Amino acid sequence: MNSSDSYEKIVKGEGDDSRLVDWRALREYSKALFLSQGMPDEDAATVADCLVDAELCGVPSHGVSRLTIYLKRLECGVVSKTFTPTIEKEYPSSVLLNANNANGMVVGKYAMELACRKAAESGSCFVFVNHSNHLGMMGYYPRLAAARGMVGFVTTSANPGIAPFGSSKPFLGTSPIAIAAPGKNDPVVLDMAPSVVAMGKVMLSMKLGVDIPEGWAMDENGKPTTDAKAASKGSVLPIGGPKGSGLSLFSQILGGIVSGAQYGPHVNTLYYDFENPQGMGHMFAAIDISKIIDLDTFKDGIERLTGEIKGLPRVEGVDEIFLPGEIEMRRRRQRETEGIHITGVVYRELTDLGKRYDVPFTL
Amino acid sequence: MNSSDSYEKIVKGEGDDSRLVDWRALREYSKALFLSQGMPDEDAATVADCLVDAELCGVPSHGVSRLTIYLKRLECGVVSKTFTPTIEKEYPSSVLLNANNANGMVVGKYAMELACRKAAESGSCFVFVNHSNHLGMMGYYPRLAAARGMVGFVTTSANPGIAPFGSSKPFLGTSPIAIAAPGKNDPVVLDMAPSVVAMGKVMLSMKLGVDIPEGWAMDENGKPTTDAKAASKGSVLPIGGPKGSGLSLFSQILGGIVSGAQYGPHVNTLYYDFENPQGMGHMFAAIDISKIIDLDTFKDGIERLTGEIKGLPRVEGVDEIFLPGEIEMRRRRQRETEGIHITGVVYRELTDLGKRYDVPFTL
Repeated sequence: MNSSDSYEKIVKGEGDDSRLVDWRALREYSKALFLSQGMPDEDAATVADCLVDAELCGVPSHGVSRLTIYLKRLECGVVSKTFTPTIEKEYPSSVLLNANNANGMVVGKYAMELACRKAAESGSCFVFVNHSNHLGMMGYYPRLAAARGMVGFVTTSANPGIAPFGSSKPFLGTSPIAIAAPGKNDPVVLDMAPSVVAMGKVMLSMKLGVDIPEGWAMDENGKPTTDAKAASKGSVLPIGGPKGSGLSLFSQILGGIVSGAQYGPHVNTLYYDFENPQGMGHMFAAIDISKIIDLDTFKDGIERLTGEIKGLPRVEGVDEIFLPGEIEMRRRRQRETEGIHITGVVYRELTDLGKRYDVPFTL
Repeated sequence: MNSSDSYEKIVKGEGDDSRLVDWRALREYSKALFLSQGMPDEDAATVADCLVDAELCGVPSHGVSRLTIYLKRLECGVVSKTFTPTIEKEYPSSVLLNANNANGMVVGKYAMELACRKAAESGSCFVFVNHSNHLGMMGYYPRLAAARGMVGFVTTSANPGIAPFGSSKPFLGTSPIAIAAPGKNDPVVLDMAPSVVAMGKVMLSMKLGVDIPEGWAMDENGKPTTDAKAASKGSVLPIGGPKGSGLSLFSQILGGIVSGAQYGPHVNTLYYDFENPQGMGHMFAAIDISKIIDLDTFKDGIERLTGEIKGLPRVEGVDEIFLPGEIEMRRRRQRETEGIHITGVVYRELTDLGKRYDVPFTL
């Protein structure tokens, strides 16, 4: 089995010792773990939903394999168990929000919904957030806006994963850009890191001891590598050279500098620093479509656009043209019915977490 | 001379028969040409400034080589000589603007400034535009916002140049994304097409009879090509595969569908259709930084961030790490002093335009 086959299996959650679990049960178990650490019921439900949503979408790098680290950070007190938002500045279409070091997913849902509420009044709204933490799978938030008939747009500062174009040293975050628009049926959801791959995929490959494909990353000396461990100490490559590098730069500016939060090398790491808060910053934007164009007319437009694209001639070897978010939506439907494959390594982690936090293991 | 040397010379404006012209004289002459076609004084000045600004930045693909087509479109009446904006919907932070088929640069400046004025009241503002035309070099507009202490963000729908990921047929526009933030001295300005190169560079290469580098484009059958003419009938490749494809899709949605304008294949071409308006749509956004964080604190943050990046270790063969927009700003200073190189082909076009429109040639 070569590394790319192996990686494909990981993404699909299929392996020799993988287990199939029900998504509702996985969400309940995840929620129980967060409750055990003193998180309020609603917040525990939000974090569990966000992690299991990533599993349903087939993005296991941002799924329940992150439970261990999120719980450890709550346990050692480097992330606050409760969320007390402080609105530091507020205008009709802009807010500065201090997250007071709460879990990023709880913060993210609140900030996105706040942006939507204010956009429903004034047309659009930006919410900038400081003193926050890792957001998990970013596509989760703009989908909340799309479900309200709005365009949602999110980015964040993040600790170093990309070397600025021309440099050999990781400095810019692999900060995703996520944007969603409502459709007649499913929303269109683009959730992309400005790098050829997300650093999370390199980390998962390292955890599972498999190589990464060529063209993903360079080592700490700026040389190309297929070794996941060497890549984890180096950086993933930006898409389009200076373009991906420039996108990440603006994610640091919009997420980290406008909000007065940290960016790049000044963001403390999720994995190795248990004494200092991450100090992450984010940007959430919502546009109320109905204040610009009739929402049904907009959805008809999306239907036409996406239908036209699906019907285009395909390059050799391609069976179907997919829209952004379409594969994830299809996986979701399949996994809601058939269950979620959890690899053996992660399944054992889930078992261990139950013992550690005295939560009955129910999977 | 190989094709990449040749292309470099074009970008620098240096060739065996190139001429050095003063930027103010070039701007005055360009303005006079637009005045001759019945454009009001202020609008003629705007278009001339935008085109010469592209020359100063070293982006000749969007400079005075476009005079011929812009003037021809005014002359034949497919673009309106005057701009009568109609505000179709307005809320504190969103506007729908009908451009009534005016020149795109006149529209773009108006829309960006409107977004800034409203952002100064409410915190941020989105202006969506329909019935518009080609915007020229997109980085021009968000720089107007940065000069007012704001973040500016612009995108547009555009006629087909990119095949959606998985397809062989151009459908999505090479719609740029342009974003700018103020700095202590110069702004940071990212102006990028979601393709490996702008189609404008392929067109200019074709005009000058030079090959394009590998990896830029595919022909109309979806095969890679270095022939500029074959590429001009095919498509340029998106950065990062599905990522660049997804970015362009959202430019069509935000520029073309939210505004009720056209997108992709429904946008009429700048070059070949002189009977139907282009029907382009755009999105302009402004964020008033001072309503979120003290502007000087923000600029200090930008100064720190950019200083850190400039000082990073460089990969072998790189002499200096550049920030987005920095090379353009440096070229501008040089060309303002030393003059702008205009290739022989374009210089002859400029001479011909004077004769055609009875405007004294002053270069």
